[in-house]
Amino acid sequence: MSDPILVEVLRGDSVECVHRGAAVVSDAAGRIVFSLGDIDRAIYPRSAIKALQALPLVESGAADRFGFGNAELALACSSHSGEERHVATAAGMLARAGLGEADLECGAHWPSGAAATHALARSGGKPSALHNNCSGKHSGFLCFACSQDIDTRGYVGIDHKVQRFVAEAVGEVTGHRLDADTAVGTDGCSIPTFAVPLTKLAQGFAKLATGEGVGPERAKAFVRLRAACAAEPFLVAGSGRFCTDVMELLGQRVFVKTGAEGVFCAALPDQGLGIALKCVDGAPRASEVMMATLIAKLLPMNEAEAAKFRRFVTPVMKNWNGITVGGLRPTFS
Amino acid sequence: MSDPILVEVLRGDSVECVHRGAAVVSDAAGRIVFSLGDIDRAIYPRSAIKALQALPLVESGAADRFGFGNAELALACSSHSGEERHVATAAGMLARAGLGEADLECGAHWPSGAAATHALARSGGKPSALHNNCSGKHSGFLCFACSQDIDTRGYVGIDHKVQRFVAEAVGEVTGHRLDADTAVGTDGCSIPTFAVPLTKLAQGFAKLATGEGVGPERAKAFVRLRAACAAEPFLVAGSGRFCTDVMELLGQRVFVKTGAEGVFCAALPDQGLGIALKCVDGAPRASEVMMATLIAKLLPMNEAEAAKFRRFVTPVMKNWNGITVGGLRPTFS
Repeated sequence: MSDPILVEVLRGDSVECVHRGAAVVSDAAGRIVFSLGDIDRAIYPRSAIKALQALPLVESGAADRFGFGNAELALACSSHSGEERHVATAAGMLARAGLGEADLECGAHWPSGAAATHALARSGGKPSALHNNCSGKHSGFLCFACSQDIDTRGYVGIDHKVQRFVAEAVGEVTGHRLDADTAVGTDGCSIPTFAVPLTKLAQGFAKLATGEGVGPERAKAFVRLRAACAAEPFLVAGSGRFCTDVMELLGQRVFVKTGAEGVFCAALPDQGLGIALKCVDGAPRASEVMMATLIAKLLPMNEAEAAKFRRFVTPVMKNWNGITVGGLRPTFS
Repeated sequence: MSDPILVEVLRGDSVECVHRGAAVVSDAAGRIVFSLGDIDRAIYPRSAIKALQALPLVESGAADRFGFGNAELALACSSHSGEERHVATAAGMLARAGLGEADLECGAHWPSGAAATHALARSGGKPSALHNNCSGKHSGFLCFACSQDIDTRGYVGIDHKVQRFVAEAVGEVTGHRLDADTAVGTDGCSIPTFAVPLTKLAQGFAKLATGEGVGPERAKAFVRLRAACAAEPFLVAGSGRFCTDVMELLGQRVFVKTGAEGVFCAALPDQGLGIALKCVDGAPRASEVMMATLIAKLLPMNEAEAAKFRRFVTPVMKNWNGITVGGLRPTFS
């Protein structure tokens, strides 16, 4: 099926590009309250489900054992920009488990934040695995393994105990059990990513929002992870990033997390709803507008908040001279 | 109308993303020999038509007056990566007209090439207008203005003589005259960009390929600009870039030029054909695969060339550990 155009990119008064996608809003029981496009398709959730992938770290007691607070838990849920505090927090997590950068199997890359890259190069430094945008998640994996006396080597492998525990937790929350037909890919950071229907992802995020349909321990872990991200939104993404800025503005009322290739998920605790969406061409600029439009639709905001939030729904594009050349706008509301 | 899916992005064995687009192949008389999608739509050609925008520089005699060779002409047609030789060549062009960086009105940005950005930051340097990927085109504009005793100030403006000469040349080559209905936008480098139907762009590039349908002076300018880019493909883009690598492999047999937001144009001299295409979501990764697929379809290659060219048609995606995680493939051939 052909997904609808959900976002237009304007230059001058003309539409220069269009982005198609699918989006679904669900409650924890799986009742769909809003949808656009082919919502039954299974998609690779990529980094959008890092909060679910952090469940073993919390539920096993590893986070407590190593004294992790909001900063460490937020970083475990993050796709960070590789800024100083991100790198330092990841290094600190590893140190508490007696581990270090060499134990990370995510690969090294220059910070995804441009300013952080310039600063690192200017200092004569080189990118390490700690700069990898997934180093917080990986540090969480390693700490979980240590606390369980699991050999950490090869922890990114699909058959490694760490990934089995992670997949088990994600499968339980989404209600989408893995089987022989499940599409599986390798993520940028080398862990497996399993395809999940958009509807199931949205339902899973409604559970994250409410704690409904999961046991009391998991519900507690959900509250703790959401509270950590709301308290440390900078650590979930970075300077000028959508996830950070939206959670800074709206606090505990929304948990949002982006994933590569146009995926975005969110949990709205007060509404008891979860959102999952995919821009089918993978463009973050469009998945952000789709998510912002749904949040604006579902979450009551006061006038000041709504005014500040507008830039996420209809971002303005400026050129190198700071001249406004166009912008993005949703085709739905 | 809905444009067809032309490129799929795979992760593992599953399609993770799709890219739609329109593409047309035309001869210089406007006969369409191949097309996909809505080819009558007018699109902003952006940087794909820099070779046409360089016509006043050559035809006015300015290029000769300042002693420009292949390097300067290739840079005038370029969207470069801001590497050392790009910056030095732009500075050299300006110096020959008694101008300098301060005369550029394109704005400054960090080099679009990652390695060039790291090197610049490491050296303690800051980005200037010379690093702007359009600095070669702008240096050409400035040199043209100087040679014609046109005041250069405000040369990026839509009503400035420079832009009028440029628009006139582009209008003549594409056969698409500007009128009150023509959509106009502002480009990243602050010059106007006028919407042109894809069919007319392809026809214009067939003229660039053959010199048919234009006067002898313009035909000579076409030959000179194409030869310059074939001789200096590095200066047209940069290290590891599609335009550079394709022209390095195929030499004078193809002129290719990318533009922002998924535009790509090409001229095939031996076939007497022009190509114009647009990935409608603006993704370069997809416009490159579309262009490569059309070149592979239209241009005879020997076995060794075809083997080397395959990576443009079906690029492989690796992750930060160098593991192959997927790739792109065209849905047409």
